[in-house]
Amino acid sequence: MSGGFLNPLLVQDAVRRALEEDLGRAGDLTSLACVPAGRNAEAVIAAREPGIVAGLALAREAFRQIDADISFKTPVADGHRIGPGAVVAQISGDARAVLSAERVALNFLGRLSGIATLTSRYVAAVAHTSARICDTRKTTPTLRAFEKFAVRCGGGMNHRYGLDDAILIKDNHIAVAGGVKAALVAAKAAAGHMVVIEIEVDTLDQLDEAVAEGVDIVLLDNMRPDTLREAVRRTGNRIKTEASGGVTLETVRAIAETGVDMISVGALTHSAPVLDFGLDITIR
Amino acid sequence: MSGGFLNPLLVQDAVRRALEEDLGRAGDLTSLACVPAGRNAEAVIAAREPGIVAGLALAREAFRQIDADISFKTPVADGHRIGPGAVVAQISGDARAVLSAERVALNFLGRLSGIATLTSRYVAAVAHTSARICDTRKTTPTLRAFEKFAVRCGGGMNHRYGLDDAILIKDNHIAVAGGVKAALVAAKAAAGHMVVIEIEVDTLDQLDEAVAEGVDIVLLDNMRPDTLREAVRRTGNRIKTEASGGVTLETVRAIAETGVDMISVGALTHSAPVLDFGLDITIR
Amino acid sequence: MSGGFLNPLLVQDAVRRALEEDLGRAGDLTSLACVPAGRNAEAVIAAREPGIVAGLALAREAFRQIDADISFKTPVADGHRIGPGAVVAQISGDARAVLSAERVALNFLGRLSGIATLTSRYVAAVAHTSARICDTRKTTPTLRAFEKFAVRCGGGMNHRYGLDDAILIKDNHIAVAGGVKAALVAAKAAAGHMVVIEIEVDTLDQLDEAVAEGVDIVLLDNMRPDTLREAVRRTGNRIKTEASGGVTLETVRAIAETGVDMISVGALTHSAPVLDFGLDITIR
Amino acid sequence: MSGGFLNPLLVQDAVRRALEEDLGRAGDLTSLACVPAGRNAEAVIAAREPGIVAGLALAREAFRQIDADISFKTPVADGHRIGPGAVVAQISGDARAVLSAERVALNFLGRLSGIATLTSRYVAAVAHTSARICDTRKTTPTLRAFEKFAVRCGGGMNHRYGLDDAILIKDNHIAVAGGVKAALVAAKAAAGHMVVIEIEVDTLDQLDEAVAEGVDIVLLDNMRPDTLREAVRRTGNRIKTEASGGVTLETVRAIAETGVDMISVGALTHSAPVLDFGLDITIR
Amino acid sequence: MSGGFLNPLLVQDAVRRALEEDLGRAGDLTSLACVPAGRNAEAVIAAREPGIVAGLALAREAFRQIDADISFKTPVADGHRIGPGAVVAQISGDARAVLSAERVALNFLGRLSGIATLTSRYVAAVAHTSARICDTRKTTPTLRAFEKFAVRCGGGMNHRYGLDDAILIKDNHIAVAGGVKAALVAAKAAAGHMVVIEIEVDTLDQLDEAVAEGVDIVLLDNMRPDTLREAVRRTGNRIKTEASGGVTLETVRAIAETGVDMISVGALTHSAPVLDFGLDITIR
Amino acid sequence: MSGGFLNPLLVQDAVRRALEEDLGRAGDLTSLACVPAGRNAEAVIAAREPGIVAGLALAREAFRQIDADISFKTPVADGHRIGPGAVVAQISGDARAVLSAERVALNFLGRLSGIATLTSRYVAAVAHTSARICDTRKTTPTLRAFEKFAVRCGGGMNHRYGLDDAILIKDNHIAVAGGVKAALVAAKAAAGHMVVIEIEVDTLDQLDEAVAEGVDIVLLDNMRPDTLREAVRRTGNRIKTEASGGVTLETVRAIAETGVDMISVGALTHSAPVLDFGLDITIR
Repeated sequence: MSGGFLNPLLVQDAVRRALEEDLGRAGDLTSLACVPAGRNAEAVIAAREPGIVAGLALAREAFRQIDADISFKTPVADGHRIGPGAVVAQISGDARAVLSAERVALNFLGRLSGIATLTSRYVAAVAHTSARICDTRKTTPTLRAFEKFAVRCGGGMNHRYGLDDAILIKDNHIAVAGGVKAALVAAKAAAGHMVVIEIEVDTLDQLDEAVAEGVDIVLLDNMRPDTLREAVRRTGNRIKTEASGGVTLETVRAIAETGVDMISVGALTHSAPVLDFGLDITIR
Repeated sequence: MSGGFLNPLLVQDAVRRALEEDLGRAGDLTSLACVPAGRNAEAVIAAREPGIVAGLALAREAFRQIDADISFKTPVADGHRIGPGAVVAQISGDARAVLSAERVALNFLGRLSGIATLTSRYVAAVAHTSARICDTRKTTPTLRAFEKFAVRCGGGMNHRYGLDDAILIKDNHIAVAGGVKAALVAAKAAAGHMVVIEIEVDTLDQLDEAVAEGVDIVLLDNMRPDTLREAVRRTGNRIKTEASGGVTLETVRAIAETGVDMISVGALTHSAPVLDFGLDITIR
Repeated sequence: MSGGFLNPLLVQDAVRRALEEDLGRAGDLTSLACVPAGRNAEAVIAAREPGIVAGLALAREAFRQIDADISFKTPVADGHRIGPGAVVAQISGDARAVLSAERVALNFLGRLSGIATLTSRYVAAVAHTSARICDTRKTTPTLRAFEKFAVRCGGGMNHRYGLDDAILIKDNHIAVAGGVKAALVAAKAAAGHMVVIEIEVDTLDQLDEAVAEGVDIVLLDNMRPDTLREAVRRTGNRIKTEASGGVTLETVRAIAETGVDMISVGALTHSAPVLDFGLDITIR
Repeated sequence: MSGGFLNPLLVQDAVRRALEEDLGRAGDLTSLACVPAGRNAEAVIAAREPGIVAGLALAREAFRQIDADISFKTPVADGHRIGPGAVVAQISGDARAVLSAERVALNFLGRLSGIATLTSRYVAAVAHTSARICDTRKTTPTLRAFEKFAVRCGGGMNHRYGLDDAILIKDNHIAVAGGVKAALVAAKAAAGHMVVIEIEVDTLDQLDEAVAEGVDIVLLDNMRPDTLREAVRRTGNRIKTEASGGVTLETVRAIAETGVDMISVGALTHSAPVLDFGLDITIR
Repeated sequence: MSGGFLNPLLVQDAVRRALEEDLGRAGDLTSLACVPAGRNAEAVIAAREPGIVAGLALAREAFRQIDADISFKTPVADGHRIGPGAVVAQISGDARAVLSAERVALNFLGRLSGIATLTSRYVAAVAHTSARICDTRKTTPTLRAFEKFAVRCGGGMNHRYGLDDAILIKDNHIAVAGGVKAALVAAKAAAGHMVVIEIEVDTLDQLDEAVAEGVDIVLLDNMRPDTLREAVRRTGNRIKTEASGGVTLETVRAIAETGVDMISVGALTHSAPVLDFGLDITIR
Repeated sequence: MSGGFLNPLLVQDAVRRALEEDLGRAGDLTSLACVPAGRNAEAVIAAREPGIVAGLALAREAFRQIDADISFKTPVADGHRIGPGAVVAQISGDARAVLSAERVALNFLGRLSGIATLTSRYVAAVAHTSARICDTRKTTPTLRAFEKFAVRCGGGMNHRYGLDDAILIKDNHIAVAGGVKAALVAAKAAAGHMVVIEIEVDTLDQLDEAVAEGVDIVLLDNMRPDTLREAVRRTGNRIKTEASGGVTLETVRAIAETGVDMISVGALTHSAPVLDFGLDITIR
């Protein structure tokens, strides 16, 4: 399963900034000292543990920006499940260049594959239901597009990308606006025809108020499964439901079984451990 | 304990890019729709769990860039240990602006505090020894300076910042250079007088070769405690020792007790879970 | 009527690039030569013709970036209707600085007010109906957020901001996908729950196919009023309708009277003539 | 007739920013959903109305940045007159990439061709005289180099590019400096030998003062044809004359026949309607 | 004598890049280690040798960007002649911040003052003639605007700022164009009315050809004083003359006495030694 | 002898900014006017005086960015000694493009070769000793990485690259910290294991205090040869010595003979005269 699209302009920018961060002013002192100029090498990037791979385009770009003549071949694709030891890239070219780009490539690959892998575990836990797992805006600053791509690689679905592409009325907005109904009325008056409106409700009373006023999606925040099931019942077919808050791998199954359409999980992007990859020189 | 320095130019750049990412072209649709123009609000940022706070300067900058008139006061400082519910910032100003900057501020704060908190747990585990906990280059691309700051906030020490400020000869370099001695000879010939040289060794034989040739630091990779203890004995006083590889909160104590000077832990920056913070409107 | 929000970070960036473009390497040669250093001046920006003002924040920012001590007061607000000769800003400060920033300020103000003014004429023409006037993506490259703001100042509504915040299936997509139904099935499978789907149809047959499959909005392209009226009848209440193509101030009234919900007009942003403003020194 | 030079570095920068604006964080949702990965397409860009083409290099760059493998062939060149339906580019490559770059390419092409076309109408209206049509600094912020190129494509001549490459003393400068003579004395003292000096005069008395003091060019502002003719007579051969203010396609002929050397027209860049182009998939 | 204008936007950009270069990722390790947080200091910047000061705005900006609360007072102004030991700035503020910005401030100040000082020596050497000393495009990449400002601070005059603000036909252009006359005809056909045309001639024959065709300025390249004098005689009053090539402090007087209008000196910007400044802490 | 590494990302950035500075908005007016479109040319870059070449990669990049089809061959390499008239590059391609990139290429090449050449003279003067010549942070703002590369091309060694990659305690730090011992204690407590510590001492008493406390390197500031010799004697083998201050080509030999390990020379980068190169069209 592929994660679909990764804007190539964003890939170029992010990799460039990451390389500038790692190479600094003087470059890779170690490779320059220890590796003879002009020496070629072949290497592989291999997984040290099983998971879902994501971010190969960023790894490829890291080597390309250091040296456009490096060959970078990928026997797998983003979204593929891999076992421990699996080779995800075969690299050949100038040895100094390969070693200089290694860490940036692995840092992107490990982080995004970690997100994809964690997502896939949530997705598997709810596979017997119709619920979809989706992400949040709790992403690493400046890496959101890549992390949302990784969520798709893991089988998840994306929530909104920013403050500007959908309306999500949360508790603080409701408080300032003066209640659920007032907030929804204001949102509908302001939103254009291309904008989806979602509102967070904490209680069934708030839910009823939202349903009465009408809205595209309700976010059911921190509700227990019983309450969720009742909330799903009250919303009917025309309003989608999203569960959120305190979702873990232990609790997600029960939540999914309540009939909610979506379950959003902040941990997918804010707390996924890295998936461990290493680069090994194979021929020198 | 403070983490010391955070380059203000880097803070400005990173926060700006993060806000551009979140606000997009159209800005915060929800706050613009639901919050009346000119409405003021007071809010607090509170921790939802205990830990070490890090990144307050980034949170402050997020509000400042959206609206320079927002007041942002911090009753604690980076590096402070906080309990659950602790307020780390008191905010006052235009309600729309406060809500628009919220997520960027929390994303930085949660991630960096998560790193500081995890670091502090490693530091506590080895507090009865002379070993120092330090980080690696396995950081989030483009956020390295902030993550290394967070490690210091947690009581850790920084390893090198990039490929350009120290020499670290790793297994791939040794392989290409033709052995430990050859790599060290090359590194010493190339390095200026301001550059520290460290070499990774996997065996005691490699260690002996490094000690014989002379080096500033040896990185003892993936050795068991018994081997580490013997390695420390062989290096003597003039060469520092660093243990690395497979370090966890379960194993770090035994590693520290072998007498190594440093223990480097990639997980500090690549797998620390977020520390949960929330923003609550208190007066509106 | 105000246009609402204009992302301050985008304003800063655009004004900075515009000033760099106009000042070049050597700055304002004329003011430096002809205006004594330290001389103060008061000036007004006045409209040379009636219309709707838009872009005051960009004008203000131009003066601020050249000299933060310049006072810039606005007796009107974006979205206000003004008569010929109306003063929209009163400026006071260093005379060189005022004259150096003049052209950039006027270029933004004239262009955006031109868009707001043209929009207001379309809006007035359909005011007796329920149809809303909206913009397109036919905007000036890199100025889209400002031009969409100007459309709102003129009473219009915004269509999507880019390729990434909504799905709009056009004739080329339908052709490649293999028909209306196939395109819609693919879009629904790919779209997350936060994404609105719209499809362009050229005939009533295509419309029927879209209605049968289900979609959020149909764009009725280049249809005559009779056909539009029939199309509105066939879509019913659950699908919104948008008319597009060949809309002019002469034709828009008849189109609106067919009952469509929206009318999108590319000319609002791609062909609006500037609204003429001038800066006059009043005291020197 | 070609417009000559378009700085390739500026082309790259502007197209990149325009693509980032249109693709956003998530890319072209519609093409990704409706167009199968790997599908190729052939397309043409065709004019929907007659005019002068300008901006092909920007259109080409848009496709190149999205996908360097797209073939982009142009049967015409910038500055060529084209009829309705004329094909100006033949494109072949990945269908998703072609559709993703379409709007940015068309937005640049339509805007610049609109400027070239309007310019050519002014140029034609004065072709029986020796007067040249030239532009002003009333250009779209950040697109000045391209718009001045388009003016050349239409047969016009460029006035100064910014505040820094020539001196143009306007009414506000004269007022602050204390008169025509004082302003000219100051300008000559400050200007280096590589800088042309022009002064705006509103009356024949001001003109006489400028001629007496000496200057390279006089800008005759808002004068009627009779006055212009007299002004030309008084300036003689050594000073060039430029007419400005209230120039329209209706009035430009009479102005040109007064014998002025140049006629500057702000409308060329601030109010030119777009020239309509479309992209049509021809083979899929 | 002041150098006039220095674009504040360019100052901000250049200082920011310079600080980022010097502070790197980790900041000023030494000051952070050795200077207690919160300690204040007063300091002066003093000249270690006599000369002309230039670049105070850049020095001021360096301290401002590190800490906006630092006070920076200048008892002299750019263009002033100073003796050895002269204090050019009094600084007060946070000690760490003062020391962190010191080197960037001094590097700009020393380099630009060195250029101003060398320029002033050339200017003094020709003060008894009407010849003006001017610079070339042989400047430090990316610092041209500042170096041309420094030339003005030293009493010199600026030649063109770039390839785009004047025409200067050099030997290579003449060779490709097919001779002096052909090059001039082409240049006049292409140049707008705001563009000065200069041509380089190596012989009196070439000069005669240029005079016959007409041009604004002739650059007399590498001619001996006798030849220069004859060249000045042949050009008459309507064409300005510029001597260039092999100009040194030893030869410039004789060149100036030939009657040429300008003498351009590449060494002003490409080989001026720094003027030595130091920062001394006075109160701590 | 090669200078080793030059970060290709920094080369791309610096050349791009330099070209933007020189080409401005309108490009190379002269070449566009005088050189027919499509004309090819061959050219050489030749040294006008003997020296050490440095910066060929930047020259190459200047031509590549203007026109990727230009051929640029280098018969020599950075660090090579060349005689007067030596050809360092053979260039072939579009004549306009070659001439447009010429000045930027020569400006980088001349400046860096000037630094390499001056460095080589210092290196030659001390070749009979074990002292190494090294640079300082007195570099051209934003060009430090290139200038330090040029120092290596001339046979010199690099001192630290910025404030962040080593600790150098100078007189101002000692004064604020309260003495040599206090400063060293603070530095050791703050420095990580990857950071070298150096301290500047002005007297033998300060030196003794530094030796007693322990440090990696002592910088002996402005000491006479006799004092330097005594200082070297007192430091012994474990602490390296660096002489600094008032070093000239006349004094460096005597300084080197005192036995110091390094001699740092600010003039290498802040006052090196350019090495003169020219570009000659050979075939057109």
